[in-house]
This record gives sequence, C-alpha cells and structure tokens, in this order.
Amino acid sequence: MESLALLTEQFRRLPGVGRRSATRMAFAILDLSEEEVALFARTILEAKAKIHPCAICGNLTDRDVCSICSDLERDASMICVVEDARTLLAMEKVREYRGLYHVLGGLISPMKGQTPETINLQSLVDRVAQNAGNSGSAVSEVILALGATVEGDATAMYISRLLSPYGVRVSRLAYGIPVGSDLEYADEVTLFRALQGRTGL
Amino acid sequence: MESLALLTEQFRRLPGVGRRSATRMAFAILDLSEEEVALFARTILEAKAKIHPCAICGNLTDRDVCSICSDLERDASMICVVEDARTLLAMEKVREYRGLYHVLGGLISPMKGQTPETINLQSLVDRVAQNAGNSGSAVSEVILALGATVEGDATAMYISRLLSPYGVRVSRLAYGIPVGSDLEYADEVTLFRALQGRTGL
Repeated sequence: MESLALLTEQFRRLPGVGRRSATRMAFAILDLSEEEVALFARTILEAKAKIHPCAICGNLTDRDVCSICSDLERDASMICVVEDARTLLAMEKVREYRGLYHVLGGLISPMKGQTPETINLQSLVDRVAQNAGNSGSAVSEVILALGATVEGDATAMYISRLLSPYGVRVSRLAYGIPVGSDLEYADEVTLFRALQGRTGL
Repeated sequence: MESLALLTEQFRRLPGVGRRSATRMAFAILDLSEEEVALFARTILEAKAKIHPCAICGNLTDRDVCSICSDLERDASMICVVEDARTLLAMEKVREYRGLYHVLGGLISPMKGQTPETINLQSLVDRVAQNAGNSGSAVSEVILALGATVEGDATAMYISRLLSPYGVRVSRLAYGIPVGSDLEYADEVTLFRALQGRTGL
C-alpha cells in the first residue's frame, strides 16, 4: 500500500474519523513543514511514554503527582470521585470546583468483571482515613461525580457505605445529568447545575 | 504544559478537529498499545518523508512513478487534468474514468501570483507533444476537471489554446445541477450553466 493510504488508515483509528475526514487529515499532514510533522509524531510518542496515573489521585499525568494534587491553592478538604480522567477533565472545564479528585478507573460492574477490588477504591479510603486524624486538613466531603447509570448508582452506594465510619460527608451530583447518558458528553452548564445541586447520601 | 494538553493541541492542528474531538483523539491514543502508537507515529513520519510528486503526472506517490501512471491497464490516450491530488482522489472514487491524470498543483491566478510558469503546465504540453508522433499511443483527449471558478475558467481556456497545435481533443467536465439536489436551492449561475449545457432526451 502507498504511504498516503497507510497514513489515512492510521487516522481512521481515531474516534469519529471516517474515510473522508481521514483523507483530509492525511493531506493536512503533508501540507505541514518537516519540523511540524516531526513535532506531531514526537508529541504522540512522548504522550504515550510519559503519561501514567498520578500516585495520589489516579489522574493522568506525566509527573509523579499531578498538577491538581500538587496545587496548594486547591481545597484539600474536598475530594471529587470520578470514573476516569475524561470525566475529570470535563469537571475541570466547569471552573467551579476547587477541591481535589479521585479517579476510580472504572465503576463496580459484576457483569463486566469490575469489583471494588479491581478499581482504584482502596486508595480513596486510605486518603480519607489518613486525613481523618488531623483536625485542620481532614477531608470533610467526598463528592461522587458518577454517571446516572446502574453501575454509577451501585458504585455510589458502595462508596457511601465504605466511607461512613470516617464521619465524612458523602454527596452526589444532582440529577441534572440526563439519565442513562455518559458523563463525558455532558455540557458545561449541565455539569455546573449538577454540581450546585449535589445532595447528601 | 502537560503531555496530554500538548497532544490535544497537536490534534487541533488537523482540519475539522475542535477542542472536544481533539481531547477524544488524545485519549484514544493513550488507549492504544505502545506498538500501535509507535506505528501511528512512524506512519506519519514516513508519509511525510516518502511522499513526493510523481515524475510523470505530479500525483502524490512514494515511488518514482505513481501507481496510476505505471498501471498498464489504464487508457494512456486520455489525460484528465486536475488542480491537486485531492481532486484526483475524488475522481478516482467515481470508478468510471480509466485514463491517466495530470496534476497542475494550482490554477492560473494573477491575484495569487500563480502564472502558467508556476504551475505544472509545461510537462502537460510535453506529454501531449511527446506522444503526438506515435500513431498508436498518442494522447487523443485531454479532459479538464477544474472547478467552475474564475481561476478554473481561465486555466481551462489557457490550456485549451496551449494544446490546440497538437490536434488533441480538449474537453471539460459538464457543469449543472448537483445530482439529488433541489432545483429551488440552485444558484442562478449554476442554473444558467445547466441551461446552456442542456442535453437532448
């Protein structure tokens, strides 16, 4: 196969890219300078090589601790629990939440073989327990920003019971989120309303 | 800036890719295996390094002579003149034309500093002249597949005059109503051209 066809094929791997878009992208690459193409390829390789979960919250980062966990201006008394880094990014775009995060890397789903042990849950308990002794910096609230799905509901209930011994407030985003839809695709206004209307569990 | 943001930024360079699509693409890259990402990056670099104009027709290729020019089953007596390789690809998708091509790499446009000398025009004359001596393989027809714009019209007129000494038939794609579209929405110029080019039933 010719290089142009191979390049088009690679772009078709990307989500939402059909035959026509992939062809346009391939031509766009050829229109870039050699330096720009080199940067493009290098950025892809470096992102894949460098990005890994944050040691504290599980967010994707290229440092040991992500930029949110290491930001001293963020409110360490709040932890927002999300399914994945995509959802974290969506929450950050609201520019309203100033606390920390915890990325589960999945939801409890026996059907998909996801149990409390296979997702990043124990480290959340550790974070809450670790701070429970201090009077000043203790975690006061855990906000569950999970999709309004069966798995989201099950995971929220499970975490709520898991954290009950630590006297921490556990809340959940309000049902401003369209039921049954993926959080990743919610618009910013909807996310903002859901954040404001969060309720105790 | 973190690697994820840098990767997203690179995808936004591509045509038709906004903030949201670029983010989805960046996450899709992270979901690929290391081998797949390496192949993705290598394909981009190799395409840029290898692809150049075909020595005969100017089409993009990674060989000396492109796959169309070197295909002996194609009808060498017809040359379809197109503005760029994108248009060539669009023509090929029709799967009706079995002749050869000639890629101009632009249209005559004094406003944009494009003259007959800056586009790939002399080599078209050479191709037609070279074959004019042979009786068997002579080019019998040059089809101009150029846009219905001022530049397209000017270029078509220029090529038509340029080739007149060689006794070759010069034709142009028909202009008219796009198939499947409502006549109500056609602009006046298109309607005028469609009326001029009307055919007997």
